[in-house]
Amino acid sequence: MNLIMLFEEDFFAPDRVRLEGRRLAHVLGVHGAAPGDSLAVGVLNGRMGRGTVTHLDPSALEMDVRLDQDPPEKLPLTLLLALPRPKVLNRALAAATSLGVARIVLINAWKVEKSYWKSPRLNPENLQQQRVLGLEQAKDTILPELSLVRFFRSFVEDELPALVGNTLPLVAHPGSPEPCPRGLSRPITLAIGPEGGWVDAEVKSLIDCGFRPVDLGPRILRVETALASLVGRLY
Amino acid sequence: MNLIMLFEEDFFAPDRVRLEGRRLAHVLGVHGAAPGDSLAVGVLNGRMGRGTVTHLDPSALEMDVRLDQDPPEKLPLTLLLALPRPKVLNRALAAATSLGVARIVLINAWKVEKSYWKSPRLNPENLQQQRVLGLEQAKDTILPELSLVRFFRSFVEDELPALVGNTLPLVAHPGSPEPCPRGLSRPITLAIGPEGGWVDAEVKSLIDCGFRPVDLGPRILRVETALASLVGRLY
Repeated sequence: MNLIMLFEEDFFAPDRVRLEGRRLAHVLGVHGAAPGDSLAVGVLNGRMGRGTVTHLDPSALEMDVRLDQDPPEKLPLTLLLALPRPKVLNRALAAATSLGVARIVLINAWKVEKSYWKSPRLNPENLQQQRVLGLEQAKDTILPELSLVRFFRSFVEDELPALVGNTLPLVAHPGSPEPCPRGLSRPITLAIGPEGGWVDAEVKSLIDCGFRPVDLGPRILRVETALASLVGRLY
Repeated sequence: MNLIMLFEEDFFAPDRVRLEGRRLAHVLGVHGAAPGDSLAVGVLNGRMGRGTVTHLDPSALEMDVRLDQDPPEKLPLTLLLALPRPKVLNRALAAATSLGVARIVLINAWKVEKSYWKSPRLNPENLQQQRVLGLEQAKDTILPELSLVRFFRSFVEDELPALVGNTLPLVAHPGSPEPCPRGLSRPITLAIGPEGGWVDAEVKSLIDCGFRPVDLGPRILRVETALASLVGRLY
């Protein structure tokens, strides 16, 4: 936690907050903070700055906050990600958020097991929590947009063209003749398949929607590793 | 596991292997393989190919193997990594290995807690196991070299110059005026600090050894995310 995320309900005065629970435990256990200390804070979807500890005991942390910085700019990147298995989902969401991805679409694919869609990790509280953890890691406050798409085909045919808009649409597809481009500055829509990859029909649907299949080299990476490597390469 | 790693002791004939334990459990539980199926295999530090299942029961898997492929080339990258906390160490080692890093040096730094050096995860068996997991993920067989450096200063002064040799030495240091370069093909030595970063004296020692401090942007990333992003950017 490189920044303590503040929410509207934490404020009991325009520039004063009171925290309990996870954030209090972190400040007590990891920061070992004391009254007078200054901690990096940010308001969800708002500005960032410093909080000065005015009161700290095992039940609550109070701070005077001064919000004088803007959060870093998001990458102009929309990530179309085949729903990872539950064990991987949290890591992938936090990693994508920490990297500055602006928008995440979790989408079904042939090789996504149906049971993944029943995971309790898909509840809205967890989906927000993992993104908040990514923001706190990265020192950012702007929650990436997130949507869940249960039906690949109708989404790709009916909604994806508008989402792609003027972005460069790329689909990661091992073995493609074109290597993934690098060092771009334009908006990108990047599709990353499930473990085992997209099936041919899915790649064809994406190509029909304007996507260019790109190769990432001979190594097969875990989704969160592939994602970070791609973001480093693309921007 | 995108490749089943084979070790010398698995062979009971020149082209026949017998496996138990973790790899057997994986083949039974994840692959759901049956006699006659063909699985991707590779010999540690050797060639890769296919294994045809000749016998499979809950106590052992036997395969006929044909090793007709070379593993992918390593990236010409030496990673000088401040020893991560134990919880992160396994993930960082597997990620670095899966990315194709040729050599990993785990080094002490001011902000590395002394207790990290006492972690049971630093035993040679675990250090090998995490790298093997990274190879099995990536479909590679060549174990990256790994060394542990307990004393930063004497290592940097006495041994690092020879290790750097003709490589491009870079130290990731947030706030440096020079952004991290991209799309290189030459050998690189890349130093990544602990959570909290290198202290000034460490950066100075590395600069004295020829390292260029480079900035990675405004976001603070977890070590395994930063590593993947950097590798994607550098190569």
